[in-house]
Amino acid sequence: MKILVINAGSSSLKYQLIDMEEEQVLAKGNCERIGIDGVITHKAGERKTSYEVPFPTHTQALKELVKLLTEGEGRAIDSVREIAAIGQRIVHGGELFTKSVLITDDVLKGIEDICDLAPLHNPAAVQSIRACRDVFGDTPQVAVFDTAFHQTMPEKAYMYGLPYEYYEKYHVRRYGFHGTSHRYVSNRLFDISDISRSGSRIITCHLGNGSSLCAIKNGICIDTSMGFTPLDGFIMGTRAGSIDASIVTYLAEKEGLSMKEMSDMLNKKSGLLGLSGISSDNRDVTRAADKGDPRAQLTVDMLSYQIKKFVGSYAAALGGLDAVVFTGGIGENDHHVRKRVCADMEFLGLSIDVVANREAQGQERNISAPHSLVETWIIPTNEELLIARDTEEIVSRA
Amino acid sequence: MKILVINAGSSSLKYQLIDMEEEQVLAKGNCERIGIDGVITHKAGERKTSYEVPFPTHTQALKELVKLLTEGEGRAIDSVREIAAIGQRIVHGGELFTKSVLITDDVLKGIEDICDLAPLHNPAAVQSIRACRDVFGDTPQVAVFDTAFHQTMPEKAYMYGLPYEYYEKYHVRRYGFHGTSHRYVSNRLFDISDISRSGSRIITCHLGNGSSLCAIKNGICIDTSMGFTPLDGFIMGTRAGSIDASIVTYLAEKEGLSMKEMSDMLNKKSGLLGLSGISSDNRDVTRAADKGDPRAQLTVDMLSYQIKKFVGSYAAALGGLDAVVFTGGIGENDHHVRKRVCADMEFLGLSIDVVANREAQGQERNISAPHSLVETWIIPTNEELLIARDTEEIVSRA
Repeated sequence: MKILVINAGSSSLKYQLIDMEEEQVLAKGNCERIGIDGVITHKAGERKTSYEVPFPTHTQALKELVKLLTEGEGRAIDSVREIAAIGQRIVHGGELFTKSVLITDDVLKGIEDICDLAPLHNPAAVQSIRACRDVFGDTPQVAVFDTAFHQTMPEKAYMYGLPYEYYEKYHVRRYGFHGTSHRYVSNRLFDISDISRSGSRIITCHLGNGSSLCAIKNGICIDTSMGFTPLDGFIMGTRAGSIDASIVTYLAEKEGLSMKEMSDMLNKKSGLLGLSGISSDNRDVTRAADKGDPRAQLTVDMLSYQIKKFVGSYAAALGGLDAVVFTGGIGENDHHVRKRVCADMEFLGLSIDVVANREAQGQERNISAPHSLVETWIIPTNEELLIARDTEEIVSRA
Repeated sequence: MKILVINAGSSSLKYQLIDMEEEQVLAKGNCERIGIDGVITHKAGERKTSYEVPFPTHTQALKELVKLLTEGEGRAIDSVREIAAIGQRIVHGGELFTKSVLITDDVLKGIEDICDLAPLHNPAAVQSIRACRDVFGDTPQVAVFDTAFHQTMPEKAYMYGLPYEYYEKYHVRRYGFHGTSHRYVSNRLFDISDISRSGSRIITCHLGNGSSLCAIKNGICIDTSMGFTPLDGFIMGTRAGSIDASIVTYLAEKEGLSMKEMSDMLNKKSGLLGLSGISSDNRDVTRAADKGDPRAQLTVDMLSYQIKKFVGSYAAALGGLDAVVFTGGIGENDHHVRKRVCADMEFLGLSIDVVANREAQGQERNISAPHSLVETWIIPTNEELLIARDTEEIVSRA
């Protein structure tokens, strides 16, 4: 079965075509600047293409994609009919969607109803689903939600200390994101390590441009650092992470910021970028720190320190710890961050092998010291594959 | 030496007169409703008095206090001249005051300059200092700051992930509060336990109507849960604790709240009160939970869970743990909270003796299980005594 996995933004549409027989990526790419002008980057096997072409809508982008997939250099299939199903990554499933589902009209309406909770992301997903109906007709579509894995959190973990009415009126609560990644790497850990799901206490660290930690007990999420929105938790590329909420009211008055401007500041001008004044990219900040820039050094120190504190807090939530998994761009590739997070954690029974840690770059590897009671792993994430697997399972069942 | 300790609010003035010879409280009480009408509650030895009397200003309240202290039933001294010095509790010392200081004109100006950071508290302290000059003339006054103990925090702990300019322009950072309490109980721990300051890793839990945790290494604060304001951290009587800052911008738009109303909601209508809908008093909420009220149960569960996570995170910040100290109204008296926070913490080497914990109410006690590697203590706080000690030391030196 061949499955097209789609991750749509308001002006972009990332895709992977996966042959589920061997779980092999046949083609992947990105349609960018949809509604602005349009550029497509496409890779099928070793053949790469990139060119400009106008995409007034997501539908136009998908039509171009079909052409690329079935004709010429970038061809990966003979006919669009070979695509058995489409897996759509949806950022927000609210409290409605606790697992992946076949997209029916009711489901589509449900996703639309939650747009309020993810005003940048869910409308794009709705556009993408509609565009796929235009272009792929009756081909079944499956929705895989970033929030679904976290819906097992207990109430004490997902509620905020606010007047209860805001939960009732607006569903203000912790949702958590990156669920597909946390689910993928935790499941993968059970496959490749001696740790079995039952009784296990695991912390998965998805560290990228956006980052979150997840506390997983018996394979099930019990807490996560992102919250009502992806702003909560610790510092990220451009996001502030958790702050004293009084800073918002204080700065709104001092700086005369509107709530829109405040939200932009917290989400787009804070984090690594805002602290360092250099870049939102951890690699740039690390380089500047190595050259002696004090604000870059502060930024780098804060990132590891805040992650370390979350690891400790989730160890307490889990009642102990069996494994820590690092994933995402930073988690897979930055051995400095992993080393700092794992330093002085012997009290948890956690020690890493510094050489193994330094050598490991983007590959699956156990980087624990031989005597460590807690295993530390690097497991590259693969959200697209999990979306494809969910899609295959659901359409096979249907 | 007899020292008058004053803790002034905008409409109240709590006091203790302490004889430092034996560290004995000669009299204590509270002038309330200053500027409204006025009522004084006074206790000297076993003699209690309470009556209404108009207090248009803090000066009037202090004049009434002098009368009470030197005349009639509530008398504790023969003459106001016996008061050798006055210790003033000041909520906010900003980055300017890292320890207690003799109040000079420059210091008074410094406290006034920080009023912006503590708009409810510092102006009251300034009023109180001026009123004491009116009433006690040249009697030396010493300022003891709630924030001072936390000024040893490293930059990585006190900075928020915001654009750096807000730190430069407005001194937006973590300050922490309850410093006098955290300092008192941690010092007391070194006096009464086998734990010595050097090399020690301690978490002090001040749990009251306002609550904070503090991570203390070698007797020095390295992190604390309250932040830029006393709102940050975990849920308190009426305060939300840490939330996703996006909730502020979201609710401001949804509910049309001004920043003043938002601040009121977060500080006065949230926490135990907002969640339970019953009371800001943990005892009321616990009673309702015991009777089966589900929101009260959630509230009680959240309080312990959030404290537990902070204990874990500070254990990670400290690189391990030697002792946990509970203090404050809840910390000293609520064995349920202590039990829940300390449950399933064997991975940290922490186990409590459940019987000792249940029996201990408001007295100094080691409640650790015999085999526990981490000691758990109840140590009633005494901020007034520490203020008096600082005051004595500074005026003796001067």
